[in-house]
Amino acid sequence: MPDVAVIGASGFTGALAAHLLWRHPRFDLVAVTARSGAGRRLDDLSPRHRVPLVLEERDLDRHGDVDAAVVAYPHGASSGVVAQLRRRGARVVDLSADFRLRDLAVYEQWYGSGHEAPALIGDAAYGLSELHRERIAAGDLVANPGCFPVAVLLTLAPLARAGLIGEVVVDGKTGVSGAGRAATEKTHFVTVDENVNPYGVGRHRHTPEMEQELAALGADVPLTFTPHLLPLDQGELVSCYVTPARETDDAELAGLYAEAYAGEPFVELTDRPPGVRDVRDTNVCRIAVTQERHTGRILAFGAIDNLWKGASSQAVQNLNLMFGLGEGEGIA
Amino acid sequence: MPDVAVIGASGFTGALAAHLLWRHPRFDLVAVTARSGAGRRLDDLSPRHRVPLVLEERDLDRHGDVDAAVVAYPHGASSGVVAQLRRRGARVVDLSADFRLRDLAVYEQWYGSGHEAPALIGDAAYGLSELHRERIAAGDLVANPGCFPVAVLLTLAPLARAGLIGEVVVDGKTGVSGAGRAATEKTHFVTVDENVNPYGVGRHRHTPEMEQELAALGADVPLTFTPHLLPLDQGELVSCYVTPARETDDAELAGLYAEAYAGEPFVELTDRPPGVRDVRDTNVCRIAVTQERHTGRILAFGAIDNLWKGASSQAVQNLNLMFGLGEGEGIA
Amino acid sequence: MPDVAVIGASGFTGALAAHLLWRHPRFDLVAVTARSGAGRRLDDLSPRHRVPLVLEERDLDRHGDVDAAVVAYPHGASSGVVAQLRRRGARVVDLSADFRLRDLAVYEQWYGSGHEAPALIGDAAYGLSELHRERIAAGDLVANPGCFPVAVLLTLAPLARAGLIGEVVVDGKTGVSGAGRAATEKTHFVTVDENVNPYGVGRHRHTPEMEQELAALGADVPLTFTPHLLPLDQGELVSCYVTPARETDDAELAGLYAEAYAGEPFVELTDRPPGVRDVRDTNVCRIAVTQERHTGRILAFGAIDNLWKGASSQAVQNLNLMFGLGEGEGIA
Amino acid sequence: MPDVAVIGASGFTGALAAHLLWRHPRFDLVAVTARSGAGRRLDDLSPRHRVPLVLEERDLDRHGDVDAAVVAYPHGASSGVVAQLRRRGARVVDLSADFRLRDLAVYEQWYGSGHEAPALIGDAAYGLSELHRERIAAGDLVANPGCFPVAVLLTLAPLARAGLIGEVVVDGKTGVSGAGRAATEKTHFVTVDENVNPYGVGRHRHTPEMEQELAALGADVPLTFTPHLLPLDQGELVSCYVTPARETDDAELAGLYAEAYAGEPFVELTDRPPGVRDVRDTNVCRIAVTQERHTGRILAFGAIDNLWKGASSQAVQNLNLMFGLGEGEGIA
Repeated sequence: MPDVAVIGASGFTGALAAHLLWRHPRFDLVAVTARSGAGRRLDDLSPRHRVPLVLEERDLDRHGDVDAAVVAYPHGASSGVVAQLRRRGARVVDLSADFRLRDLAVYEQWYGSGHEAPALIGDAAYGLSELHRERIAAGDLVANPGCFPVAVLLTLAPLARAGLIGEVVVDGKTGVSGAGRAATEKTHFVTVDENVNPYGVGRHRHTPEMEQELAALGADVPLTFTPHLLPLDQGELVSCYVTPARETDDAELAGLYAEAYAGEPFVELTDRPPGVRDVRDTNVCRIAVTQERHTGRILAFGAIDNLWKGASSQAVQNLNLMFGLGEGEGIA
Repeated sequence: MPDVAVIGASGFTGALAAHLLWRHPRFDLVAVTARSGAGRRLDDLSPRHRVPLVLEERDLDRHGDVDAAVVAYPHGASSGVVAQLRRRGARVVDLSADFRLRDLAVYEQWYGSGHEAPALIGDAAYGLSELHRERIAAGDLVANPGCFPVAVLLTLAPLARAGLIGEVVVDGKTGVSGAGRAATEKTHFVTVDENVNPYGVGRHRHTPEMEQELAALGADVPLTFTPHLLPLDQGELVSCYVTPARETDDAELAGLYAEAYAGEPFVELTDRPPGVRDVRDTNVCRIAVTQERHTGRILAFGAIDNLWKGASSQAVQNLNLMFGLGEGEGIA
Repeated sequence: MPDVAVIGASGFTGALAAHLLWRHPRFDLVAVTARSGAGRRLDDLSPRHRVPLVLEERDLDRHGDVDAAVVAYPHGASSGVVAQLRRRGARVVDLSADFRLRDLAVYEQWYGSGHEAPALIGDAAYGLSELHRERIAAGDLVANPGCFPVAVLLTLAPLARAGLIGEVVVDGKTGVSGAGRAATEKTHFVTVDENVNPYGVGRHRHTPEMEQELAALGADVPLTFTPHLLPLDQGELVSCYVTPARETDDAELAGLYAEAYAGEPFVELTDRPPGVRDVRDTNVCRIAVTQERHTGRILAFGAIDNLWKGASSQAVQNLNLMFGLGEGEGIA
Repeated sequence: MPDVAVIGASGFTGALAAHLLWRHPRFDLVAVTARSGAGRRLDDLSPRHRVPLVLEERDLDRHGDVDAAVVAYPHGASSGVVAQLRRRGARVVDLSADFRLRDLAVYEQWYGSGHEAPALIGDAAYGLSELHRERIAAGDLVANPGCFPVAVLLTLAPLARAGLIGEVVVDGKTGVSGAGRAATEKTHFVTVDENVNPYGVGRHRHTPEMEQELAALGADVPLTFTPHLLPLDQGELVSCYVTPARETDDAELAGLYAEAYAGEPFVELTDRPPGVRDVRDTNVCRIAVTQERHTGRILAFGAIDNLWKGASSQAVQNLNLMFGLGEGEGIA
């Protein structure tokens, strides 16, 4: 059974990855590390995950000797560690943004100049399993997508491939876990409770990632993306407003999505508007699409759990692919 | 001091109107009625409003003999009562949709054929005080706007008047009080909690109202409007995505809004994204606007309390105007 | 593989039982019934449970021919159906209160005179697995406990057996799912949100059940139990204030609990105060106990998920016992 | 009109005090200070309070020259500043714990040895207006009570005075604002949401304060007090379980409370269980009391808004008393 380590298990996504891998029937979770908080048991920091391992300081002489690693570090801090892990032969799923953007200049524009392993960017598969299954399975390094890109790309891919996206506006809504475990004014209960507000207006870092991947799917358009913070813990909804590039109708739309996602266990198409409760604690993306009669716009909605399909269960799905396991092992 | 009655005080907006008028220094709240629940004290049904009056069955021989009435009935049920009140000489602020749409055919298309007083439609002022102050002050019948229209129109009016709206998409977010006091699967705590979902996709009744009023302001465009239900009680945020009809920039936008709302006590312009907590339990609409650099789109956000500025305190503001009182009396 | 049906799968606990049994590796869920809503797919009514079966009207000629049934009806409505199922040979776990109270007179005092199968009361095992494992395994009819009794009895059992309970006050806190799926003023989001209030003061129906079972454990004392409704969906915390019947200390308390729950996979002892998030969506009861220095009182806290350990996963745990399966199959 | 300053206006209670005094018809709020964050406008830090003053660094040469000050510092940090303000002749309402406990030894046991003005302890009136009206009005220094003591003392005072309290257990529930504005793991949205847990078990600092004041009212008993943190922002409920020291009945209880609170505008007696929503954003304490039939215990429940009656509006009520104003000015 392959050994796996979670490097950076004290944050929300790292802890959830550890939880999923601890219970996974085909991986052996052998270590969890943390940059701060080493020495604390993970099930003390995060009781509901029930991983009875002690968080260790990272020591690649020990933790690098694994078959695979999930790295859950912030951008910038990740690339160097990933490079070391790759040199030791470990396969890596990286939850940071460091290997998502193909163009280093774009990366530096949005994330600064801290990339420590630009030579590896070309090796990384973009880890949205439903769209890049073969590439992920064939590779040793996966750039796990951002949470909003997961939802947006699954929701828009059939339209992008069909050349239907003329213009597109995405209004995103996310729970607070998307902001991470750091205690700040922004994540204080009293700030969030009974509130909703936009943030990162016109400058959210998921924007270039979505534009890059939409372009790869055939929709090379500038994207308006505005996330909003909601008083809930887990869950992400994207409301996509598409001005079609050509005529279409509900029948074509239904056909496109049915064909795109036939046989996909983790994409659900629904007639009624999806809610994030429907997908809480699952690897599922739930999608509804319709054409608005009086404007002709295509309205497409996608719901995911930002910590699961938007991060950690998506990472495990990628690991399953990389090791030739059943894609849903441990996350279905 | 003018006598005022609230006709239909058992719902959220009626009860809040009663609360505001009970404490109002220049009106004398003399009666509250309810179609069901008559005989119950309002402060038992709704303790936090602290109105120690008994809900009565409506009897216009008694309740019609007032200087003014706020009618908080559902659409269809309202128009007949409003007509009776007007015949008795009472000035009326109607919280229903019955007198908002100028065109009866449009009304019937969206609300059905139940209108009982089409002849009065032409008499009604559209009760968004900041936009129609003089008309409201001069009239005897005010159609209080829908909650989303309040937020959308205040947020978009400067753009509409300046001919800047080419295309527009509005993504609305509302708390559950917007769905009213009726206990349904939709308003059950367990349905809403930890959830967010769109509803009324492509067919929300506030759409024609907003289109009518935007056209009157100079923006005759079809509107995409999608509301979403959020796990909070009071508060409404509208995120407006405008493709400008001509070139503009942040300086022009800032100027337009500053000019439009100079001296308006209940409109706040802000540089940072507005949140609904900022306006909870107030008559304030808080607005931020910016142009997105890489797409050129105008992003405008407006936050209100759907029960206050979106309904009941807006109604009192209108009453103040109708009786020549200080516009902020009892609601500032 | 044994066939199992869920009779009454449209409520929260029935739907969750169906969810758990649908995914259970050792049971075959063959039917789900509903008294209202038959014809609707369960995954439409309750998307997150992902059970692709159609809710049927109950027809025991078909649904009674199973190896086991979980009955999730309200009290009174349950006993007759349970009797029919037993006559056809099905083993039954009953989620209602109908077979929990040993004394029919007590039942009638608290639940009225509608019991349709008093002769079966003596056959029923009280289905709290950790306390009545052998009796459950040996029987064909299990009265699944009330949600609060699960938490209270697990939290107090070591004290009761040790003769430590002199007086006891239980302050209970529950999420809204405990009130069921019925949409009422009480379960309306706006009623519950930003609120907490006691209910059923001095007369909650779980009181006699807890008194009966505490007496059986050795603590025959009148119980003060006051539940409170909280703004959360799932989760139940019981705060137990015990005046000890004799001297004790923290060391004795720790020893009693460690011994009582050694080897129990679904009881966790913790030094820090348990929270309901720690046990959300699990079959776990998490317990902390300490003696307060300046009063001598024993403070014992227990947290469960009211829908899981408080109802549906507890039911599956009982089914596992009844069929000689691993006790944690399908719920660990 | 008396000048007033709020010393420490960046926390929740200081900001709310500033809000109330800014709108107060009989006080002139002339300055707000903050230990960190000076230079920021208060309506930027806390938009909903709409106080357009800039937070200043404290400078008693300027800020001490006022008629009155509300000091909202943490315990320990407060006493020295209060002493300086008193030397300059300003009347002070202190929101900290520094002047609440009569016995310096008890203070040091619970709060450490940092008290800088023990000589002033004897001067301070305990600022629970309903219980100590004359003493507050006659003095120049008021120790504003802790939030839980406000609720507990108002709820239990009639019983304490009547010699009815034999034993007493208090289970407290509070919203997150009670933990202050500091962003910590404890106040992170994801920690609190969908959760409830006890904290400070057996050692909450409000315990000696409540014991001291209950003793003064006639109930010299050790108190068990356990607070619980709830997923809501404002609101505090105390559930008090009293073993009566002698026989009583509901009629006596009703009489005691009616008499104690006749004419009190800010105490409401209710037959149904009080909820914190009922008192949100008010200076009201809402109380229900009943005797439990089968145990004889008295169950008394009190609900307040912890930021209002539990802190800032209580402070203004005290200021009103100290300056001979109407007790409800600015807070009713």
